[in-house]
Amino acid sequence: MPLTQQDSASVSQEITVHPPNRLLFGPGPTQVHPRVYRAMAQPVVGHLDPYFFEISQANQRMLRHVFGTENEWTFVISATGSGGMETAISNFVEPGMKVAVFANGFFCDRMTEMARRHGANVVRFEKPWGGAFGDTEAAEFIHREKPKVVMYVTAETSTGVFQRGEAICQAAHEVGALVIADCVTSLGAMPVNVDKTGIDIAYSCTQKGLSCPPGLSPITISPRAVEWLQARKSTNRSWYFDIKLIGDYLFVSHRYHHTASATLFYALHEGLSLIEEEGLETRCNRHRQAHLEFVKGIGSMGLEMLVPAEYRIWNLNTPQVPEGVDDAKVRASLLKDDGIEIAGGFGPLTGKVFRIGLMGPLATSDHVQDFLAKFGDALRGADYKS
Amino acid sequence: MPLTQQDSASVSQEITVHPPNRLLFGPGPTQVHPRVYRAMAQPVVGHLDPYFFEISQANQRMLRHVFGTENEWTFVISATGSGGMETAISNFVEPGMKVAVFANGFFCDRMTEMARRHGANVVRFEKPWGGAFGDTEAAEFIHREKPKVVMYVTAETSTGVFQRGEAICQAAHEVGALVIADCVTSLGAMPVNVDKTGIDIAYSCTQKGLSCPPGLSPITISPRAVEWLQARKSTNRSWYFDIKLIGDYLFVSHRYHHTASATLFYALHEGLSLIEEEGLETRCNRHRQAHLEFVKGIGSMGLEMLVPAEYRIWNLNTPQVPEGVDDAKVRASLLKDDGIEIAGGFGPLTGKVFRIGLMGPLATSDHVQDFLAKFGDALRGADYKS
Repeated sequence: MPLTQQDSASVSQEITVHPPNRLLFGPGPTQVHPRVYRAMAQPVVGHLDPYFFEISQANQRMLRHVFGTENEWTFVISATGSGGMETAISNFVEPGMKVAVFANGFFCDRMTEMARRHGANVVRFEKPWGGAFGDTEAAEFIHREKPKVVMYVTAETSTGVFQRGEAICQAAHEVGALVIADCVTSLGAMPVNVDKTGIDIAYSCTQKGLSCPPGLSPITISPRAVEWLQARKSTNRSWYFDIKLIGDYLFVSHRYHHTASATLFYALHEGLSLIEEEGLETRCNRHRQAHLEFVKGIGSMGLEMLVPAEYRIWNLNTPQVPEGVDDAKVRASLLKDDGIEIAGGFGPLTGKVFRIGLMGPLATSDHVQDFLAKFGDALRGADYKS
Repeated sequence: MPLTQQDSASVSQEITVHPPNRLLFGPGPTQVHPRVYRAMAQPVVGHLDPYFFEISQANQRMLRHVFGTENEWTFVISATGSGGMETAISNFVEPGMKVAVFANGFFCDRMTEMARRHGANVVRFEKPWGGAFGDTEAAEFIHREKPKVVMYVTAETSTGVFQRGEAICQAAHEVGALVIADCVTSLGAMPVNVDKTGIDIAYSCTQKGLSCPPGLSPITISPRAVEWLQARKSTNRSWYFDIKLIGDYLFVSHRYHHTASATLFYALHEGLSLIEEEGLETRCNRHRQAHLEFVKGIGSMGLEMLVPAEYRIWNLNTPQVPEGVDDAKVRASLLKDDGIEIAGGFGPLTGKVFRIGLMGPLATSDHVQDFLAKFGDALRGADYKS
């Protein structure tokens, strides 16, 4: 007998969810490809179903490719990007451990907060929001502090800064430290190159460069870090984020840990397949081209970028709010008149920058030009605070 | 300019995900209503979008109804049901605290493990898997131990036992303890009655009685527990599961905490709307009727239920494996020949019970009869271990 379409004769066929059709030019979530929506409409299978593990294994393989790694331990956590951050920290930071953080934005502060909650002695190399760390100063800091774990953010969503990681990773390994890198905003839109850079633990999310809905956090762990983890004596305070248990479930024994969402795994499979079909390099270049075109357009409108050219994230742009413009008014008018979401600055950058994402389906010349036209109109409408 | 359907001319329109069409008669995930799939295909909005909070608020209201509570603090955690368990424990269990667990199955053991990881001194009232706790013995245990937190599982998915909570909650409150109740399998299929029972913290999942895909964990917290939490001196080790931060984001200040998944929130909205349209009481009765019909059918096939009638979960049945039948063979043949998923027993019940869910769209007379016919065939095919 086929499944009847209704569990009761009394319910309607009409759905109750009617969201506005936004163009998501913010820092994420980003626009989702129609194929990803169709994948999510495929029937749920159980979290121990052979087909579930087939999809999970394919996701692991495709994630290795976008992460730029051969790490066997490459999989997803059943939580959002911040859950990936907590996974990295709860597994690799022990009470009393010295942890070094490169602190130049909101998400480095979040890393600091989490590490402290796990009992770490955190030392910070601080720069103003919007700053980036040079190779020499980064290495000196690590050699001086000799931490056990080093943490940095590859693409700082709060500021638009891309942080190079090679010198950080080399110095960290010279003092025997593991490196945790936040790749939430970079993965799938910029080259992350986990292995080449020397990152030990990298995590991300599904709703930015991978252009899926939010809900999962991809993570990858180097053999060196796995070895450290296997030798760890103290117990992870978190059971939900215990990588040994999650890895065992997803790709070692398939022993039940939690009920992973087939639906979100389908979405990720579709998003990663889209990247594979386009080609990772082509896709990253597409984001870079859209970024360059955006910067040019912004420049001809008289706006300045917050971040110097060599440190800019391609898929998250932070032009400065021009003198006399009320940024909240610009954002409100874009949302109301054009259904366009962008974000403002926060913390020390409140009122000072716009945060404009060009990711996934929106990272094309057409969309950049369309956006710039509407953004220009909104800017003119919001000139002179009133 | 409307969103172009492709981010690159080079990708196909064909999706890559082709799951088998299972009938999910296991302990969860369960069958998802077509309306829920259609809701998930609606366009993603941002996690700070006014429409997102509108949906979130509607979900809060509908969750209060299915939980049977007036608790203001009723919302969802961005993780699966076990993430809800970790949320409850990490927020309400402090290091050194005495915690009492009613232990008669797998998920009580998981609660124990999590509480110990959070530094609790756990005392357990143990019964063999399949047992339930009487009112008097439960109250005596609590009065003797005088814990600060009491934990029990309303519907133990590993055994099929429903545990009454009134006496537990009353005794707990007499000694000044908070009560955490696992409602993962009961919510949406059986009356949970959080307020009437006296539960302080209840959590669940979306993929069983609510018949949505996995990925979120509904939780509700009594004013008394909120007050305790506000006065808590020590910091929650978990940042991701910190209820004060999550509540602040979802319904107090709307300050960003994590990127909640609009897609999963839509799914939950649709699942809860379906329950409202059917009527919670009607829906629970439907599950009860399906359960009674199932038990009758199983009986006429000569199988015995593990759990006495008064302690049975309606939507998760545990008939015993008949002498001489290889349960793995039965499960494999149902999956292969009929696309039907059921589960076996595990731990001390390995090979001794089947775990058969009748939830959401499958809790109807037609589906019960169809299932029983195929189950009977599979049993006959697997008679006498070979």
